[in-house]
Amino acid sequence: MAVEVVYRSSRDLERLFMDKAEADRHDKMLELAEALATVLQQAVPSLNEQQSEDLGIFMARHRDVFSRAFKNNAEALAELPPRDA
Amino acid sequence: MAVEVVYRSSRDLERLFMDKAEADRHDKMLELAEALATVLQQAVPSLNEQQSEDLGIFMARHRDVFSRAFKNNAEALAELPPRDA
Repeated sequence: MAVEVVYRSSRDLERLFMDKAEADRHDKMLELAEALATVLQQAVPSLNEQQSEDLGIFMARHRDVFSRAFKNNAEALAELPPRDA
Repeated sequence: MAVEVVYRSSRDLERLFMDKAEADRHDKMLELAEALATVLQQAVPSLNEQQSEDLGIFMARHRDVFSRAFKNNAEALAELPPRDA
């Protein structure tokens, strides 16, 4: 019997990673998703919790596209997949 | 009587600007807001049109904060005003 190291984000206990860097990226994505959900819920109070969460996760998952769009290139948004599979 | 030049975005006919650069910025903000509303509506279909529009405008108005947040700094979102006055 051998003991091995497995990594996970404290924000998502089910998802395990063998690679620490990948676990870090996942954790940072979830951190951004949570922060986005909070500010969007405040900005548009009619959003329910599920909508805010879905928005946060969607944008955090595609953070590089959104980063370019917000920086100076709205057309970058065209690269987004129509609906997450 | 004198004729003077006034600038406006074709996306917002009511808002007039004496300064072309300011009109450009306003137009670019509205362009981003529209593009965001479209992709968010596709990503989270339960959003109604008003919610997508409000989200698009809010984020486009604060594009520099969102740009930094998406790039690498989720904490930047703390700089956002709680609710637009």
